[in-house]
Amino acid sequence: MTMETFELNKEFVDEFIVQIDSKKEDELRPVLDRLYPADIAEIFDNLQLEQAVYVTSLLDSDKKVDVLAELEPEVRVKFFKGFSKEEIAVEFVQHMDSDDAVDLLSILDTDIASEILKLLPDKQDSLYLTRLLRYPEDTAGGLMGGELIKVNINLTVYECTEEIRRQAEEVDRVYTVYVVDDSDILLGWVSLKKIILAKASTKVSEIFDSNIIYSNVNASGEEVASRMKKYDLIAMPIVDSLNRLLGRVTIDDVVDFIKEEADKDYQMLSGISHSVEMKDRVWVLSKARLPWLIIGLFGGVISSIVIGQFEGQLQENVQLALFMPLIMAMAGNIGVQSSSIIVQGLANNTITSEAVWGKLGKELMVALLNGLVCSALLMGYGLISGHSNSIMTTVSIALLSVILLAAVIGTVVPLALDRFKIDPALATGPFITTSNDLLGLFLYFMIGKLLL
Amino acid sequence: MTMETFELNKEFVDEFIVQIDSKKEDELRPVLDRLYPADIAEIFDNLQLEQAVYVTSLLDSDKKVDVLAELEPEVRVKFFKGFSKEEIAVEFVQHMDSDDAVDLLSILDTDIASEILKLLPDKQDSLYLTRLLRYPEDTAGGLMGGELIKVNINLTVYECTEEIRRQAEEVDRVYTVYVVDDSDILLGWVSLKKIILAKASTKVSEIFDSNIIYSNVNASGEEVASRMKKYDLIAMPIVDSLNRLLGRVTIDDVVDFIKEEADKDYQMLSGISHSVEMKDRVWVLSKARLPWLIIGLFGGVISSIVIGQFEGQLQENVQLALFMPLIMAMAGNIGVQSSSIIVQGLANNTITSEAVWGKLGKELMVALLNGLVCSALLMGYGLISGHSNSIMTTVSIALLSVILLAAVIGTVVPLALDRFKIDPALATGPFITTSNDLLGLFLYFMIGKLLL
Repeated sequence: MTMETFELNKEFVDEFIVQIDSKKEDELRPVLDRLYPADIAEIFDNLQLEQAVYVTSLLDSDKKVDVLAELEPEVRVKFFKGFSKEEIAVEFVQHMDSDDAVDLLSILDTDIASEILKLLPDKQDSLYLTRLLRYPEDTAGGLMGGELIKVNINLTVYECTEEIRRQAEEVDRVYTVYVVDDSDILLGWVSLKKIILAKASTKVSEIFDSNIIYSNVNASGEEVASRMKKYDLIAMPIVDSLNRLLGRVTIDDVVDFIKEEADKDYQMLSGISHSVEMKDRVWVLSKARLPWLIIGLFGGVISSIVIGQFEGQLQENVQLALFMPLIMAMAGNIGVQSSSIIVQGLANNTITSEAVWGKLGKELMVALLNGLVCSALLMGYGLISGHSNSIMTTVSIALLSVILLAAVIGTVVPLALDRFKIDPALATGPFITTSNDLLGLFLYFMIGKLLL
Repeated sequence: MTMETFELNKEFVDEFIVQIDSKKEDELRPVLDRLYPADIAEIFDNLQLEQAVYVTSLLDSDKKVDVLAELEPEVRVKFFKGFSKEEIAVEFVQHMDSDDAVDLLSILDTDIASEILKLLPDKQDSLYLTRLLRYPEDTAGGLMGGELIKVNINLTVYECTEEIRRQAEEVDRVYTVYVVDDSDILLGWVSLKKIILAKASTKVSEIFDSNIIYSNVNASGEEVASRMKKYDLIAMPIVDSLNRLLGRVTIDDVVDFIKEEADKDYQMLSGISHSVEMKDRVWVLSKARLPWLIIGLFGGVISSIVIGQFEGQLQENVQLALFMPLIMAMAGNIGVQSSSIIVQGLANNTITSEAVWGKLGKELMVALLNGLVCSALLMGYGLISGHSNSIMTTVSIALLSVILLAAVIGTVVPLALDRFKIDPALATGPFITTSNDLLGLFLYFMIGKLLL
């Protein structure tokens, strides 16, 4: 009952480090017993390698691997430097859930990973992990683990309970028992609740439910996540093309997957090139942002060249310069609005990259409507502002054209990227938005040249 | 075993509607049996009220409420028009999980909701729901439901199983059994796995685990979500200030919460004012985007006025106009980068709105570093481009200043909003980004005035 008021804070961590350095095992053990793996992992962020290895030596093997599973990948790689390959295999990988073990092995060099696999005491484990490692990270196969309870459909509830007892040692959390036939083909499921409430002599075949939602091992991570979200699943079985049960994906991995994907898209939209957090070092934060800034700078230089081509015209009509920010801001806004709604729709599986024309037509209608409203408002402003009619007409027509152009680019580019299996979120990134600005500006001056 | 290959498609839905219209009950029932509630809810999007009411009449009461819980809020409101208040109370609310019932009642008018509550057959339900309705939607209380299994610590495993049997009728999915004392104070938990594997005469007190993670009923939704995510929980008990067990939050609600929050932040960043999807009507899509466009237009008009103040200077140095887009784009990029990393950090609970100065200092360091790199690159370009030294020096100094200014605004505004309990994501919205543009432009021309 200590969690509610307990929050990891600097004082606690500092005190903890003092105890580590003086190796006060008797004081450390009870504290470590009370801490959850996720909390210990958080403390590891602040420890030197030697200190982390010492703390690990005080943990029992279950907690050891739970802590490891919670570590950030870069902390994990650093941490492993304190152990031999044999120790990694026997003390960690052997005791881990297979999906966590795969996450861990996949961040190591392939040579080292396969050496570790060879050092595992159980050849079955080693074979299963080798197989899991072959699935791409963001597929059902890459997300799944092998820890599940399955029973044959011909058993009784009593035999089933015995079977669960036998298998349950390896499986931390049991929510669902899968029902298979003699060839391991998935037939359905039965809840622990039903097993508890049924008579011992009842057959599994009488109480199991054949309505079961599952995924193929090659399904994408997005598909798995959206299916589990749609049907409110805690765990989903994964099968091969013959419907043989291979593993299961659990909701905690899906939660992490959803959050990571959302964060990635958000950072792309905000011009940060890879996942960073406020606590990272200045140099790391700076490096993550420079790419967009340099592309933006490059775009700015090119736009200065484009505008330079119209310098004579600007001299004549310096008023054209006044409305450049308006045109650019509007082009940027419309482009981002159009592309982000497509990116989000693709991510949430509510749209597909098929039927491009329909979507383009719709986005153009929206853009036309919004463009007309904005241009009309601008003309209205022109009447009271004292700017010449000719300049306001030019700006309004340019605004409408730029809005339509930005909508087309914002719609087509992410759909095209998705069609070619490239992450559509790239369309909300620097390259496209900068091109959008440039094209908008060019269009503005061309229209100015024609009309003024 | 039909799910894998079954995907809702237009042909299926059209065929289904034909069967509804000809009231082919015998053909519809088996199809409805096979469909999951989430699929039926999806079909409802395409039905007329009358058709939806007819389909509902073919469902058993459990499935009926599951379908209802999956409907989008606006579809749900429309759907209720087909039923009397009494029907809503007896056919739906009575059978729903309390968290779903609250979601449903909270979208109705307060008067109607309280009339429906009065019509519930069970006064206990009615009292509990009234209580739940008082908690704000995005708090632990607003997310929790009352369906949980709890047992007294003094029971044996046999008595505990009987108790589960008694309570389990109301609870669809049981993962964890909570252990309480005579005053309902939460003491810990015991897994169904342990209950299955223990002897009938074992005491609950011998096998329960007192390490339990829970939240106070007034905790924010973000806190609940991040705690459940951190500790990989499937359900988390919610207690009052005396630690009495009030309800539980389940992971499926947290998954929805995380996704909705991420989508909201994404749409805010991309300038769409409220949740829309590509499939919404043109007018809905247009309306969701117009606010930002009009603010952007307004900002553009103001910037034309600002630039107008410097018209004489522009006449003299028309080259100043060439670099306006560069300055604006960079100010915008830096501002969004700074604010979005803060917004994301706040959303993920990795930073707090305290210690503002430290964060500001760090962001300024990052901005200074990036600003110096960009200014140096621009000066380098100046050397080969043939622009005059004075103009390039002006633009470079202005660029550095604008970058620093944008970083300050981008950092301080979201932190300040959060401090005043306003959604910090607003800082990535139109008002702040437009102000950023304006300030940047003003600074640019002021520096130009001083140096040229």
